[in-house]
Amino acid sequence: MSSKYFEYQLTVDNILETGVTTFPNREIVYRDIRRYTFSSFSDSVKRLLSGLKKNINIKQGDRIGVMDWDTDVYLHAYYSVPMSGAVLHTVNIRYPPELILKTVLQAEDKYLIVRDEFLPLVEKAANFIPVGMKIITYNDNKEKVKSSLPVIDFWELVDSNEPSEPENLNENMMATLFFTSGTTGEPKGVWFTHRKLVLHALGVSLVGGRPPLNLSTKDTYLILVPMFHVHSWGYPYVFMLNGVKYVLPGRYDYGLILKLMDREKVTFSAMVPTILYLLISHPDANKYSNVFKNWKVTIGGSALPEGLARKAQELGITVLCGYGLSETCPVITVSYYNSLVENDNDENKFYETITAGAPLPFVKIKIFDPITGKEKNRGEIGEVVVRSPWLTQEYYKDPEKTEALWKDGWLHTGDLGFIDDKGYLHIVDREKDAIKSGGEFIPSLLLEDVISLHPKVSQVAVVGVKDEKWGERPVAFIVPKGDLKEEELRSFLNDLANKGRIQKWWIPDRFIFINTMPLTSTNKIDKKALRDQIK
Amino acid sequence: MSSKYFEYQLTVDNILETGVTTFPNREIVYRDIRRYTFSSFSDSVKRLLSGLKKNINIKQGDRIGVMDWDTDVYLHAYYSVPMSGAVLHTVNIRYPPELILKTVLQAEDKYLIVRDEFLPLVEKAANFIPVGMKIITYNDNKEKVKSSLPVIDFWELVDSNEPSEPENLNENMMATLFFTSGTTGEPKGVWFTHRKLVLHALGVSLVGGRPPLNLSTKDTYLILVPMFHVHSWGYPYVFMLNGVKYVLPGRYDYGLILKLMDREKVTFSAMVPTILYLLISHPDANKYSNVFKNWKVTIGGSALPEGLARKAQELGITVLCGYGLSETCPVITVSYYNSLVENDNDENKFYETITAGAPLPFVKIKIFDPITGKEKNRGEIGEVVVRSPWLTQEYYKDPEKTEALWKDGWLHTGDLGFIDDKGYLHIVDREKDAIKSGGEFIPSLLLEDVISLHPKVSQVAVVGVKDEKWGERPVAFIVPKGDLKEEELRSFLNDLANKGRIQKWWIPDRFIFINTMPLTSTNKIDKKALRDQIK
Repeated sequence: MSSKYFEYQLTVDNILETGVTTFPNREIVYRDIRRYTFSSFSDSVKRLLSGLKKNINIKQGDRIGVMDWDTDVYLHAYYSVPMSGAVLHTVNIRYPPELILKTVLQAEDKYLIVRDEFLPLVEKAANFIPVGMKIITYNDNKEKVKSSLPVIDFWELVDSNEPSEPENLNENMMATLFFTSGTTGEPKGVWFTHRKLVLHALGVSLVGGRPPLNLSTKDTYLILVPMFHVHSWGYPYVFMLNGVKYVLPGRYDYGLILKLMDREKVTFSAMVPTILYLLISHPDANKYSNVFKNWKVTIGGSALPEGLARKAQELGITVLCGYGLSETCPVITVSYYNSLVENDNDENKFYETITAGAPLPFVKIKIFDPITGKEKNRGEIGEVVVRSPWLTQEYYKDPEKTEALWKDGWLHTGDLGFIDDKGYLHIVDREKDAIKSGGEFIPSLLLEDVISLHPKVSQVAVVGVKDEKWGERPVAFIVPKGDLKEEELRSFLNDLANKGRIQKWWIPDRFIFINTMPLTSTNKIDKKALRDQIK
Repeated sequence: MSSKYFEYQLTVDNILETGVTTFPNREIVYRDIRRYTFSSFSDSVKRLLSGLKKNINIKQGDRIGVMDWDTDVYLHAYYSVPMSGAVLHTVNIRYPPELILKTVLQAEDKYLIVRDEFLPLVEKAANFIPVGMKIITYNDNKEKVKSSLPVIDFWELVDSNEPSEPENLNENMMATLFFTSGTTGEPKGVWFTHRKLVLHALGVSLVGGRPPLNLSTKDTYLILVPMFHVHSWGYPYVFMLNGVKYVLPGRYDYGLILKLMDREKVTFSAMVPTILYLLISHPDANKYSNVFKNWKVTIGGSALPEGLARKAQELGITVLCGYGLSETCPVITVSYYNSLVENDNDENKFYETITAGAPLPFVKIKIFDPITGKEKNRGEIGEVVVRSPWLTQEYYKDPEKTEALWKDGWLHTGDLGFIDDKGYLHIVDREKDAIKSGGEFIPSLLLEDVISLHPKVSQVAVVGVKDEKWGERPVAFIVPKGDLKEEELRSFLNDLANKGRIQKWWIPDRFIFINTMPLTSTNKIDKKALRDQIK
């Protein structure tokens, strides 16, 4: 017998243990393919942990890349990999193949977990993959996957082992690593420790319970943020900590997602605006009015256009927004009601809920002048900078970019915004998307918001183009709904300018009508592609 | 300009900043004496911080004792003192004077904040107080307090300074220190870091939102756990983190408390069972039926007798229990609904809500055999041991007792209990109160529970007395309601034994009727005094 104070570590295994202790019979559902209880899932995760350690001899600090949709296998990896002391590399499978390979090499992955349908991509790159890299593969039916490479079967790693407990974890160990989508320039790696994942999950949980979401243990989540994208915004840990039922949609098939929402009684989702748009304008959407009525969503990744928010609201959906970056784990604000808004009228509440939101607990946000670095006053536009317990320490192996990220001890988001008199953050532009016209900023996101209000506008994106006289001028790309004429839009915007909603000189010089918006690998509108189109 | 990753610290100033950022106009009410918003309170705390640093030159690690009821001044100290880098010593003012002095000396307090009514006690001890100790005093009306000692005025420290920000805090600094009530033996010191206070507040917050409490930002707390007693169970930090209105009752005057509850629309309180009993049996109680109907309470400190729980429930009060010790910050379990109970019938739910409860997030509880130290199976009685992120590291300057506390890397609670098939902890006895009869334990708390069900029993406590034949036998002390005869009680208990609620040989050998229960300094029933009475 020895006496020793136990220094408790904030590690992801403790999220799993918390979930399974308190909600042992809560369900995890993967499409119509498999169901788990938290107990059976935990058991399975701990079998995989044994397999990773015994069968493939994984070591502390090893990187394991995962190439998968949002599946039960991926969810195993979210727990088993960090619990083994190794690092989960969530590979962006939406990248072009050569970029996928590049990130795998950059991360120095020693192992890859690959869903069968992504295996051909790995096989083709066989000559470029480091010698000794081990490939673990699986398919949905638990059959062995044939390959030209030597592969290890995922399900055998799970089923042939007894559960084991994690050992010697420290909260400051690297737990996850991934590369930001990099619509401009090279992908940059960011990484997070166990401690940051745990504190992020706690922060997100706390505001989830606030009005108007009022999330409780009785909700069912179906998250539509890919698991390769910034930890699916943290929900693979948040749901377990909060003991809610969790539905995994696999590859996004919107018809199936609507069916799943209905069958599993989904009450909460998170996603980028595009996916909300695709779901509520799906041909089957009218069959699911009851589903929408009980549905609460948090929108992030891009600003939520006011028009889309109103359409969702008309369907009875409770819509909130959140804001964050790959670099911030990601959530730093959510547009829950703070004490200045909770008793306001519905229209004012709506106005604030479609902002980027109010800070999560322990998050500090300031607005700095992008040139001088001095703090701006309430209401003034500048660069959004952050401190919180869950920000990336650096860009992976990139001291130069890290230097700019952490200038003056604040994480620089590269977004332009302001904080309004109720304390809500408004993002008016990515710094790199900003349109500077006649020495002043035209806030493209605000402008898009207003254009989206026109009933015949489905989607809109505004970008800046070089202009001899003004420096830059705005151009609007529009996906119209039915027959929309430029003059209609101009007079609509002139009216709104007369009412003071926008400034007259913000009105775009050109309107370009297109059939579909180009999207990035994470389903955000790809403004770089739009700018290239004009060139 | 320098570039530096900011290592965010989990410190109490960040709780204050979180509260004031999101809930600036939320109120703090001290009796009918003073009202603050979170903004004005934060401003005042930061002025006091300036005063502590500039006017009295407080240094990192200095101890500051506070002798006060539950006041706005005390609440200032909960923030300003740890924010200065110093240590808040919450002096137990219910101790006899010589014990108060002893703890002040043991803590090595360099400063005391003393409410006017406790000043005579300090003045009398003037000869024993260390040279150079500074006394800060105040009264409710902000008048200067006269004293035979040189004193500093609290309100002047606040009002004569500009707000300042905390500097160089580290989450592993000692933030609080206090002495356990020590009904037996000498008081033992326990202490907590900033990090532990923050994580405890997060854990308590998360389960507060779960059914049946469903606490939200719209609740109003009036906590009836003295601020000198284990951080008032953490609520002086929990309320700020969660943005709820907070009502401070000063010295407990139950008539005034009922009035305050009514006027300020209180919806949540926490307290020991005795105080719940005193409030619902108060002569004015019948005037406040509407208050009780909207009231949710968490009971801790001692087990909640089933009879009292049912009486509270009849008044419409939602009653939950919690469990913890001074050594555990304190909360480690609360009887919220877990997934095995949430859909159960009302009677089964009630049964679980009056247990010690289910673990908070990140809390691990095991039951060890008190002799062999081996882990017991589900349902078996043994010593309750704990791991969590918020346990005291040691008994202050007492390596020997620390050794026993942290045997085998688990905190040993000294309580006997078991975990039921739904995962709820039942405390059957303090190890030192346990009654061992014929080689078997008689769980005195279960027995008290059953006796409390008799309609003519107001309060009950069962203790063990030496017995030649059996080793020990139980004796019950009863505060009767009206005319209660021993035979009535015996036949009542015989019936329950026949129904299997208790074992026949548990029925006490003697029933002793008394007018009032002796209480400890924290309003728990003083079993040591009862045992002494028999001797």
